[in-house]
Amino acid sequence: MPYPKDLERLINYYQKLPGIGPKSAERLALATIEFQDEEITDFSDALTKAKKNLTRCTICGHLTDKEVCDICADETRNQNLICLVEDYKSIFAFERSGQYHGTYHVLNGLISPIDDIGPEDINLPSLIDRLSKLDNPELIMALKPTIEGEATTLYIKKILENKNVIISRLSYGIPIGADFDYLDNITLEKALEDRKQISE
Amino acid sequence: MPYPKDLERLINYYQKLPGIGPKSAERLALATIEFQDEEITDFSDALTKAKKNLTRCTICGHLTDKEVCDICADETRNQNLICLVEDYKSIFAFERSGQYHGTYHVLNGLISPIDDIGPEDINLPSLIDRLSKLDNPELIMALKPTIEGEATTLYIKKILENKNVIISRLSYGIPIGADFDYLDNITLEKALEDRKQISE
Repeated sequence: MPYPKDLERLINYYQKLPGIGPKSAERLALATIEFQDEEITDFSDALTKAKKNLTRCTICGHLTDKEVCDICADETRNQNLICLVEDYKSIFAFERSGQYHGTYHVLNGLISPIDDIGPEDINLPSLIDRLSKLDNPELIMALKPTIEGEATTLYIKKILENKNVIISRLSYGIPIGADFDYLDNITLEKALEDRKQISE
Repeated sequence: MPYPKDLERLINYYQKLPGIGPKSAERLALATIEFQDEEITDFSDALTKAKKNLTRCTICGHLTDKEVCDICADETRNQNLICLVEDYKSIFAFERSGQYHGTYHVLNGLISPIDDIGPEDINLPSLIDRLSKLDNPELIMALKPTIEGEATTLYIKKILENKNVIISRLSYGIPIGADFDYLDNITLEKALEDRKQISE
Protein backbone atom coordinates (compact mmCIF):
# COMPACT_ATOMS: atom_id res chain seq x y z
CA MET A 1 0.00 0.00 0.00
CA PRO A 2 1.72 3.17 -1.15
CA TYR A 3 1.10 5.49 1.77
CA PRO A 4 3.29 8.57 2.06
CA LYS A 5 6.32 7.55 4.14
CA ASP A 6 5.53 9.63 7.21
CA LEU A 7 1.96 8.43 7.27
CA GLU A 8 3.03 4.82 6.97
CA ARG A 9 5.37 5.21 9.92
CA LEU A 10 2.55 6.55 12.08
CA ILE A 11 0.18 3.80 10.90
CA ASN A 12 2.79 1.21 11.84
CA TYR A 13 2.95 2.56 15.38
CA TYR A 14 -0.80 2.53 15.81
CA GLN A 15 -0.83 -1.03 14.56
CA LYS A 16 1.45 -2.09 17.40
CA LEU A 17 -1.32 -1.23 19.85
CA PRO A 18 -3.67 -3.98 21.02
CA GLY A 19 -6.84 -4.48 18.98
CA ILE A 20 -5.74 -2.10 16.22
CA GLY A 21 -5.62 -3.71 12.77
CA PRO A 22 -4.40 -2.16 9.51
CA LYS A 23 -7.70 -0.41 8.73
CA SER A 24 -8.15 1.06 12.22
CA ALA A 25 -4.51 2.14 12.25
CA GLU A 26 -5.05 4.00 8.97
CA ARG A 27 -8.17 5.63 10.38
CA LEU A 28 -6.38 6.71 13.57
CA ALA A 29 -3.38 8.06 11.69
CA LEU A 30 -5.55 10.04 9.29
CA ALA A 31 -7.52 11.45 12.23
CA THR A 32 -4.27 12.32 13.98
CA ILE A 33 -2.97 14.50 11.17
CA GLU A 34 -6.19 16.48 11.37
CA PHE A 35 -5.21 17.53 14.93
CA GLN A 36 -4.05 21.10 15.48
CA ASP A 37 -0.30 21.71 15.61
CA GLU A 38 -0.36 22.37 19.37
CA GLU A 39 -2.35 19.20 19.98
CA ILE A 40 0.24 17.17 18.12
CA THR A 41 3.08 18.69 20.12
CA ASP A 42 1.17 18.00 23.30
CA PHE A 43 0.18 14.44 22.29
CA SER A 44 3.79 13.68 21.46
CA ASP A 45 4.86 15.17 24.79
CA ALA A 46 2.19 13.13 26.63
CA LEU A 47 3.62 9.96 25.11
CA THR A 48 7.14 10.73 26.23
CA LYS A 49 6.12 11.92 29.70
CA ALA A 50 3.86 8.94 30.37
CA LYS A 51 6.71 6.59 29.53
CA LYS A 52 9.27 8.57 31.49
CA ASN A 53 7.36 9.48 34.64
CA LEU A 54 5.19 6.46 35.30
CA THR A 55 6.71 4.05 37.71
CA ARG A 56 5.52 1.52 40.32
CA CYS A 57 4.35 2.35 43.83
CA THR A 58 7.02 1.20 46.29
CA ILE A 59 4.33 -0.16 48.60
CA CYS A 60 1.76 -1.93 46.42
CA GLY A 61 3.29 -2.03 42.93
CA HIS A 62 0.51 0.03 41.32
CA LEU A 63 1.27 2.37 38.43
CA THR A 64 2.00 5.87 39.70
CA ASP A 65 3.96 9.03 39.01
CA LYS A 66 4.95 9.35 42.67
CA GLU A 67 6.99 7.18 45.01
CA VAL A 68 3.86 6.03 46.82
CA CYS A 69 0.62 5.85 44.82
CA ASP A 70 -2.46 7.93 45.67
CA ILE A 71 -4.29 4.86 46.98
CA CYS A 72 -1.56 3.84 49.45
CA ALA A 73 -1.14 7.47 50.48
CA ASP A 74 -4.86 7.96 51.09
CA GLU A 75 -5.37 7.79 54.86
CA THR A 76 -9.14 7.61 54.54
CA ARG A 77 -8.82 4.17 52.94
CA ASN A 78 -8.75 1.03 55.04
CA GLN A 79 -5.04 0.15 55.06
CA ASN A 80 -5.83 -3.11 56.86
CA LEU A 81 -7.72 -4.40 53.84
CA ILE A 82 -5.58 -5.49 50.88
CA CYS A 83 -6.98 -6.67 47.59
CA LEU A 84 -4.47 -8.89 45.78
CA VAL A 85 -4.48 -8.51 41.99
CA GLU A 86 -2.41 -10.01 39.21
CA ASP A 87 -1.59 -6.74 37.49
CA TYR A 88 -2.30 -3.05 37.97
CA LYS A 89 -4.89 -3.01 35.19
CA SER A 90 -7.31 -4.74 37.57
CA ILE A 91 -6.95 -1.82 39.98
CA PHE A 92 -8.41 0.54 37.39
CA ALA A 93 -11.41 -1.80 37.06
CA PHE A 94 -11.97 -1.88 40.83
CA GLU A 95 -11.55 1.88 41.11
CA ARG A 96 -14.01 2.48 38.30
CA SER A 97 -16.64 0.66 40.34
CA GLY A 98 -15.98 3.07 43.21
CA GLN A 99 -17.15 0.43 45.71
CA TYR A 100 -13.84 -0.58 47.26
CA HIS A 101 -12.17 1.49 49.93
CA GLY A 102 -9.21 -0.65 50.94
CA THR A 103 -5.77 -0.86 49.32
CA TYR A 104 -4.27 -3.18 46.73
CA HIS A 105 -1.20 -5.29 46.14
CA VAL A 106 0.01 -6.07 42.62
CA LEU A 107 1.58 -9.51 42.18
CA ASN A 108 2.88 -8.83 38.69
CA GLY A 109 2.23 -12.40 37.59
CA LEU A 110 0.92 -15.72 38.81
CA ILE A 111 2.68 -18.91 39.86
CA SER A 112 2.85 -21.12 36.78
CA PRO A 113 5.22 -24.12 36.89
CA ILE A 114 4.56 -24.76 33.17
CA ASP A 115 6.00 -21.32 32.33
CA ASP A 116 8.72 -21.71 34.95
CA ILE A 117 7.29 -18.93 37.14
CA GLY A 118 7.70 -19.75 40.81
CA PRO A 119 6.72 -17.87 44.01
CA GLU A 120 10.07 -16.07 43.96
CA ASP A 121 9.32 -14.56 40.54
CA ILE A 122 6.28 -12.59 41.61
CA ASN A 123 5.81 -9.67 43.97
CA LEU A 124 5.20 -11.81 47.09
CA PRO A 125 7.91 -10.89 49.64
CA SER A 126 6.67 -7.28 49.83
CA LEU A 127 3.13 -8.57 50.46
CA ILE A 128 4.29 -10.78 53.35
CA ASP A 129 6.22 -7.83 54.70
CA ARG A 130 3.20 -5.51 54.46
CA LEU A 131 0.90 -8.02 56.12
CA SER A 132 3.34 -8.61 58.98
CA LYS A 133 3.16 -4.93 59.92
CA LEU A 134 -0.63 -4.80 60.01
CA ASP A 135 -2.97 -5.66 62.83
CA ASN A 136 -5.36 -8.45 61.84
CA PRO A 137 -5.38 -7.58 58.15
CA GLU A 138 -7.76 -9.01 55.57
CA LEU A 139 -6.39 -10.15 52.23
CA ILE A 140 -8.95 -10.38 49.42
CA MET A 141 -7.73 -12.71 46.68
CA ALA A 142 -8.83 -11.24 43.33
CA LEU A 143 -6.84 -13.44 40.99
CA LYS A 144 -8.47 -14.82 37.88
CA PRO A 145 -10.14 -18.24 38.17
CA THR A 146 -7.64 -20.17 36.06
CA ILE A 147 -5.25 -22.96 37.04
CA GLU A 148 -2.48 -20.40 37.66
CA GLY A 149 -4.79 -18.13 39.62
CA GLU A 150 -6.00 -20.99 41.81
CA ALA A 151 -2.45 -22.31 42.34
CA THR A 152 -1.27 -18.87 43.42
CA THR A 153 -4.25 -18.42 45.73
CA LEU A 154 -3.64 -21.80 47.36
CA TYR A 155 0.10 -21.16 47.73
CA ILE A 156 -0.47 -17.81 49.39
CA LYS A 157 -3.17 -19.25 51.63
CA LYS A 158 -0.69 -21.90 52.76
CA ILE A 159 2.21 -19.59 53.57
CA LEU A 160 -0.09 -17.26 55.48
CA GLU A 161 -1.43 -20.02 57.71
CA ASN A 162 -1.17 -19.12 61.43
CA LYS A 163 -0.16 -15.58 60.49
CA ASN A 164 -3.34 -13.91 61.75
CA VAL A 165 -4.46 -12.86 58.29
CA ILE A 166 -8.09 -13.18 57.23
CA ILE A 167 -8.04 -14.50 53.68
CA SER A 168 -11.11 -14.12 51.48
CA ARG A 169 -11.75 -14.35 47.78
CA LEU A 170 -14.17 -12.63 45.41
CA SER A 171 -17.35 -14.60 44.91
CA TYR A 172 -17.78 -16.51 41.69
CA GLY A 173 -21.16 -16.42 40.04
CA ILE A 174 -23.34 -15.10 37.34
CA PRO A 175 -22.32 -11.68 36.02
CA ILE A 176 -25.07 -9.06 36.28
CA GLY A 177 -27.00 -8.78 33.03
CA ALA A 178 -25.76 -12.10 31.70
CA ASP A 179 -27.96 -14.33 29.62
CA PHE A 180 -28.15 -17.86 31.02
CA ASP A 181 -27.95 -19.34 27.54
CA TYR A 182 -24.43 -18.07 27.13
CA LEU A 183 -23.03 -18.95 30.54
CA ASP A 184 -20.33 -21.61 30.65
CA ASN A 185 -20.76 -24.70 32.80
CA ILE A 186 -18.08 -23.85 35.32
CA THR A 187 -19.58 -20.45 36.07
CA LEU A 188 -22.99 -22.05 36.60
CA GLU A 189 -21.47 -24.74 38.79
CA LYS A 190 -19.65 -22.11 40.90
CA ALA A 191 -22.81 -20.01 41.13
CA LEU A 192 -24.70 -23.03 42.49
CA GLU A 193 -21.90 -23.89 44.88
CA ASP A 194 -21.63 -20.32 46.21
CA ARG A 195 -25.39 -19.83 46.43
CA LYS A 196 -26.62 -17.61 49.24
CA GLN A 197 -29.75 -17.90 51.26
CA ILE A 198 -32.13 -15.05 50.63
CA SER A 199 -32.66 -13.32 53.93
CA GLU A 200 -36.20 -12.48 54.88
CA MET B 1 -11.18 7.97 37.86
CA PRO B 2 -7.91 8.58 39.66
CA TYR B 3 -5.35 7.75 36.97
CA PRO B 4 -1.83 9.03 37.45
CA LYS B 5 -1.71 12.48 35.80
CA ASP B 6 0.61 11.57 32.92
CA LEU B 7 -1.42 8.48 32.11
CA GLU B 8 -4.65 10.43 32.13
CA ARG B 9 -3.21 12.95 29.68
CA LEU B 10 -2.27 10.17 27.27
CA ILE B 11 -5.67 8.49 27.68
CA ASN B 12 -7.36 11.80 26.86
CA TYR B 13 -5.43 12.04 23.61
CA TYR B 14 -6.31 8.52 22.56
CA GLN B 15 -9.92 9.29 23.33
CA LYS B 16 -9.89 12.10 20.80
CA LEU B 17 -9.34 9.54 18.04
CA PRO B 18 -12.36 8.18 16.15
CA GLY B 19 -13.95 5.03 17.55
CA ILE B 20 -11.89 5.09 20.75
CA GLY B 21 -13.97 5.21 23.93
CA PRO B 22 -12.73 5.53 27.52
CA LYS B 23 -11.99 1.82 27.94
CA SER B 24 -10.12 1.45 24.65
CA ALA B 25 -8.18 4.63 25.36
CA GLU B 26 -7.09 3.20 28.72
CA ARG B 27 -6.06 -0.04 27.02
CA LEU B 28 -4.07 1.80 24.34
CA ALA B 29 -2.36 4.06 26.86
CA LEU B 30 -1.38 1.14 29.09
CA ALA B 31 -0.03 -0.73 26.07
CA THR B 32 1.89 2.36 25.01
CA ILE B 33 3.79 2.65 28.26
CA GLU B 34 4.94 -0.94 27.77
CA PHE B 35 6.78 0.16 24.61
CA GLN B 36 10.57 0.38 24.72
CA ASP B 37 12.11 3.82 25.29
CA GLU B 38 13.34 4.05 21.69
CA GLU B 39 9.93 3.10 20.37
CA ILE B 40 8.31 5.89 22.36
CA THR B 41 10.81 8.44 21.05
CA ASP B 42 10.21 7.20 17.53
CA PHE B 43 6.40 7.09 17.90
CA SER B 44 6.43 10.62 19.22
CA ASP B 45 8.67 11.67 16.32
CA ALA B 46 6.38 9.90 13.83
CA LEU B 47 3.43 11.93 15.15
CA THR B 48 5.23 15.23 14.75
CA LYS B 49 6.70 14.38 11.33
CA ALA B 50 3.41 13.11 9.92
CA LYS B 51 1.71 16.35 10.91
CA LYS B 52 4.58 18.51 9.68
CA ASN B 53 5.50 16.82 6.40
CA LEU B 54 2.20 15.66 5.00
CA THR B 55 0.70 18.08 2.56
CA ARG B 56 -1.56 17.96 -0.50
CA CYS B 57 -0.47 17.04 -4.02
CA THR B 58 -0.47 20.20 -6.14
CA ILE B 59 -2.06 18.28 -9.03
CA CYS B 60 -4.75 16.05 -7.55
CA GLY B 61 -5.05 17.09 -3.90
CA HIS B 62 -4.06 13.68 -2.50
CA LEU B 63 -2.13 13.41 0.76
CA THR B 64 1.60 13.33 0.09
CA ASP B 65 4.97 14.26 1.50
CA LYS B 66 6.16 15.58 -1.88
CA GLU B 67 4.98 18.41 -4.11
CA VAL B 68 3.44 15.94 -6.54
CA CYS B 69 2.12 12.64 -5.15
CA ASP B 70 3.49 9.25 -6.22
CA ILE B 71 0.34 8.50 -8.20
CA CYS B 72 0.45 11.69 -10.31
CA ALA B 73 4.21 11.24 -10.76
CA ASP B 74 3.85 7.63 -11.93
CA GLU B 75 4.18 7.67 -15.71
CA THR B 76 3.04 4.06 -16.05
CA ARG B 77 -0.42 5.11 -14.88
CA ASN B 78 -3.04 6.28 -17.33
CA GLN B 79 -2.98 10.06 -16.84
CA ASN B 80 -5.97 10.40 -19.17
CA LEU B 81 -8.19 8.57 -16.70
CA ILE B 82 -9.20 10.54 -13.61
CA CYS B 83 -11.23 9.13 -10.77
CA LEU B 84 -13.04 11.89 -8.88
CA VAL B 85 -13.32 11.33 -5.14
CA GLU B 86 -14.71 13.36 -2.26
CA ASP B 87 -11.68 13.04 -0.01
CA TYR B 88 -8.26 11.41 -0.10
CA LYS B 89 -9.33 8.58 2.19
CA SER B 90 -11.18 7.06 -0.77
CA ILE B 91 -7.89 6.90 -2.68
CA PHE B 92 -6.45 4.54 -0.08
CA ALA B 93 -9.47 2.26 -0.55
CA PHE B 94 -9.05 2.22 -4.34
CA GLU B 95 -5.31 1.66 -4.05
CA ARG B 96 -5.82 -1.22 -1.64
CA SER B 97 -7.86 -2.99 -4.31
CA GLY B 98 -4.90 -2.66 -6.71
CA GLN B 99 -7.30 -2.74 -9.67
CA TYR B 100 -7.17 0.88 -10.76
CA HIS B 101 -4.34 2.25 -12.84
CA GLY B 102 -5.47 5.78 -13.61
CA THR B 103 -5.10 8.93 -11.50
CA TYR B 104 -7.39 10.68 -9.02
CA HIS B 105 -8.74 14.08 -8.21
CA VAL B 106 -9.78 15.01 -4.69
CA LEU B 107 -12.75 17.39 -4.43
CA ASN B 108 -12.38 18.02 -0.70
CA GLY B 109 -16.10 18.23 -0.24
CA LEU B 110 -19.41 18.03 -2.06
CA ILE B 111 -21.83 20.69 -3.21
CA SER B 112 -24.42 21.08 -0.47
CA PRO B 113 -26.69 24.16 -0.57
CA ILE B 114 -28.09 23.24 2.85
CA ASP B 115 -24.59 23.60 4.37
CA ASP B 116 -23.85 26.62 2.20
CA ILE B 117 -21.18 24.77 0.19
CA GLY B 118 -21.24 25.83 -3.44
CA PRO B 119 -19.15 24.77 -6.48
CA GLU B 120 -16.61 27.50 -5.65
CA ASP B 121 -15.93 25.96 -2.22
CA ILE B 122 -14.61 22.64 -3.51
CA ASN B 123 -11.54 21.72 -5.52
CA LEU B 124 -13.21 22.09 -8.94
CA PRO B 125 -11.22 24.75 -10.88
CA SER B 126 -8.06 22.61 -10.79
CA LEU B 127 -10.06 19.66 -12.16
CA ILE B 128 -11.39 21.72 -15.09
CA ASP B 129 -7.87 22.94 -15.69
CA ARG B 130 -6.43 19.40 -15.64
CA LEU B 131 -9.10 18.08 -18.00
CA SER B 132 -8.59 20.91 -20.47
CA LYS B 133 -4.96 19.88 -20.91
CA LEU B 134 -5.76 16.23 -21.63
CA ASP B 135 -6.67 14.59 -24.89
CA ASN B 136 -10.10 12.92 -24.70
CA PRO B 137 -9.91 12.20 -20.97
CA GLU B 138 -12.31 10.00 -19.02
CA LEU B 139 -13.62 11.19 -15.68
CA ILE B 140 -14.95 8.48 -13.37
CA MET B 141 -17.34 9.92 -10.80
CA ALA B 142 -16.77 8.07 -7.51
CA LEU B 143 -18.79 10.25 -5.17
CA LYS B 144 -21.05 8.72 -2.59
CA PRO B 145 -24.65 8.07 -3.58
CA THR B 146 -26.24 10.73 -1.38
CA ILE B 147 -28.14 13.88 -2.31
CA GLU B 148 -24.91 15.91 -2.10
CA GLY B 149 -22.97 13.33 -4.12
CA GLU B 150 -25.63 13.24 -6.84
CA ALA B 151 -25.92 17.03 -6.93
CA THR B 152 -22.16 17.36 -7.35
CA THR B 153 -22.08 14.68 -10.04
CA LEU B 154 -24.89 16.40 -11.98
CA TYR B 155 -23.29 19.82 -11.64
CA ILE B 156 -19.93 18.59 -12.92
CA LYS B 157 -21.60 16.66 -15.74
CA LYS B 158 -23.33 19.88 -16.78
CA ILE B 159 -20.27 22.13 -16.79
CA LEU B 160 -18.28 19.54 -18.75
CA GLU B 161 -20.88 19.28 -21.52
CA ASN B 162 -19.33 19.77 -24.98
CA LYS B 163 -15.87 19.66 -23.44
CA ASN B 164 -14.83 16.33 -24.99
CA VAL B 165 -14.70 14.53 -21.64
CA ILE B 166 -16.08 11.02 -21.24
CA ILE B 167 -17.94 10.98 -17.94
CA SER B 168 -18.72 7.68 -16.24
CA ARG B 169 -19.72 6.65 -12.76
CA LEU B 170 -19.08 3.60 -10.61
CA SER B 171 -21.84 1.02 -10.89
CA TYR B 172 -24.29 0.72 -8.04
CA GLY B 173 -25.32 -2.73 -6.94
CA ILE B 174 -25.04 -5.50 -4.46
CA PRO B 175 -21.73 -5.63 -2.58
CA ILE B 176 -19.88 -8.93 -2.92
CA GLY B 177 -20.62 -11.24 -0.02
CA ALA B 178 -23.69 -9.29 1.08
CA ASP B 179 -26.71 -11.02 2.53
CA PHE B 180 -29.90 -10.08 0.66
CA ASP B 181 -31.83 -9.87 3.93
CA TYR B 182 -29.77 -6.91 5.02
CA LEU B 183 -29.73 -4.94 1.78
CA ASP B 184 -31.57 -1.65 1.74
CA ASN B 185 -34.29 -0.97 -0.80
CA ILE B 186 -32.41 1.66 -2.75
CA THR B 187 -29.42 -0.60 -3.30
CA LEU B 188 -31.70 -3.37 -4.54
CA GLU B 189 -33.54 -0.94 -6.78
CA LYS B 190 -30.24 0.32 -8.26
CA ALA B 191 -28.99 -3.23 -8.69
CA LEU B 192 -32.12 -4.08 -10.69
CA GLU B 193 -31.87 -0.89 -12.72
CA ASP B 194 -28.18 -1.44 -13.55
CA ARG B 195 -28.58 -5.16 -14.24
CA LYS B 196 -26.30 -6.63 -16.90
CA GLN B 197 -27.08 -9.34 -19.40
CA ILE B 198 -25.02 -12.45 -18.75
CA SER B 199 -22.95 -13.02 -21.86
CA GLU B 200 -22.84 -16.54 -23.23
